[in-house]
Amino acid sequence: MESFFSFLEKRVDDFSSLLCIGLDPHVSDLRTDGQSPVPTAEAARDFCLNLIRQTARYAAAYKPNAAFFEVFGADGWTALKQVVDAIQEESNRQGSMIPVILDAKRGDIASTAEAYAQSAFENLEVDCITLSPYLGKDSIDPFIQESEKGVFLLCKTSNPGSGDLQDLMLESGEPLHIHVAKLAQEWNTRNNIGLVVGATYPEALARVRDVAPNLWFLAPGVGTQGGDLESALKAGLRKDGKGMLIPVSRAIARAEKPGLAAAELRDTMLEMRLSISANR
Amino acid sequence: MESFFSFLEKRVDDFSSLLCIGLDPHVSDLRTDGQSPVPTAEAARDFCLNLIRQTARYAAAYKPNAAFFEVFGADGWTALKQVVDAIQEESNRQGSMIPVILDAKRGDIASTAEAYAQSAFENLEVDCITLSPYLGKDSIDPFIQESEKGVFLLCKTSNPGSGDLQDLMLESGEPLHIHVAKLAQEWNTRNNIGLVVGATYPEALARVRDVAPNLWFLAPGVGTQGGDLESALKAGLRKDGKGMLIPVSRAIARAEKPGLAAAELRDTMLEMRLSISANR
Repeated sequence: MESFFSFLEKRVDDFSSLLCIGLDPHVSDLRTDGQSPVPTAEAARDFCLNLIRQTARYAAAYKPNAAFFEVFGADGWTALKQVVDAIQEESNRQGSMIPVILDAKRGDIASTAEAYAQSAFENLEVDCITLSPYLGKDSIDPFIQESEKGVFLLCKTSNPGSGDLQDLMLESGEPLHIHVAKLAQEWNTRNNIGLVVGATYPEALARVRDVAPNLWFLAPGVGTQGGDLESALKAGLRKDGKGMLIPVSRAIARAEKPGLAAAELRDTMLEMRLSISANR
Repeated sequence: MESFFSFLEKRVDDFSSLLCIGLDPHVSDLRTDGQSPVPTAEAARDFCLNLIRQTARYAAAYKPNAAFFEVFGADGWTALKQVVDAIQEESNRQGSMIPVILDAKRGDIASTAEAYAQSAFENLEVDCITLSPYLGKDSIDPFIQESEKGVFLLCKTSNPGSGDLQDLMLESGEPLHIHVAKLAQEWNTRNNIGLVVGATYPEALARVRDVAPNLWFLAPGVGTQGGDLESALKAGLRKDGKGMLIPVSRAIARAEKPGLAAAELRDTMLEMRLSISANR
């Protein structure tokens, strides 16, 4: 059965890449034009289009973060749609689907979740979305009905405060994030559920990999947030040397030559993958 | 110190109302015009403006749900801004601030949360937002810096699946949602954090009230979702007969006369409040 993760895996194989390029047009990264004293949604769009143009040969996936578009209101949503469209055009040009993961961390009761799912999958036409698991299975269901569309559930996030809830020890003797990983494994009947596990916590990555041997992880936190790439890959890669997407945003966007930075990151990840597989 | 909850409490007192009117323009509730086969963002806006016009004398607060605007893309965000503006105009007309709670259930790492906070508080100019607690304190911080702006943290939600995570028993002997309530109590140094506790679970409402005697609750689920109003109020009201907002959406929007339905609901809640206080 074709599913979101079979599409992603094909892209990862064909382009030897685990690199997920974050499209996070932080206001501080945007130029202002002569007319407006503050950056506009158009500047955010152009920032992303430029990144896409320069990095599309190295990307396993793109991950636009909804917040940095939403902050521009209606114009931001127009920009976000244009960015997603540009990735689809690039996919067509390459003859290879580049999955788009909307980083939105939504989570609401079912009737509301249906509207968020329609917004992401039918209107924006992204392929995948990040979701919070806090409201339980019925809040996830509207997003996983079609196997071609996927979700990454927040499990153990990369931020310092992630421990406040996610590390709480349950009566069953396991921390909450491990329970979430087991639920995701159980709910994943269509091969379209993955997990967000921060690269900043390699021990958590290893623990989650133990209970979810086959799930894909989205592992943010390398670079700015201090996560070490090699430790994260060692802890989180599947036995087949895949199963992890590493989002990188500023280290590419702020590089003098973003294309070169992306190519180097892609290659570094590939070498680490091979060396980790060889030493297992 | 003036805070979101001091503003809300003033409104509740001045208008003797615990009624929070949900602005949820479900596509199925919208009319189509002759030109477009599907409802438009303008229809969603007009649906809300009509509701506001008819119910503003009875509302303690309004709660637009972001999903039902987001589903229209850029036009939806324009409509949402117009709806918030209309509530502010109505506040000016009445000479009484009607708080606007954006039901968005956002939750992201701090640098991203800052963009969501800017979007809600500076651009849309709402007074309060619903947030998921799953990412911990640092994901909440950007929203609670100014005491005049508030948040409702998801604690025990109204949906059937809420038990999947929120009822998990912790090693400490309490369910996760009780721990969240205690955290909210601890984090609430500026009197601007409340809790979402579903009216569908009166026992949870009572338990959460025990550990958070002073916090405001937003208690959805009355009506369509099956929550019983009187049981919810009995379980969740503070000793002073306040501390709860009851969101109602379809029961008002679908009534033949929404203004009358809102007035009756306001009065019913008031009578129940008085009778509950008298019997304590």
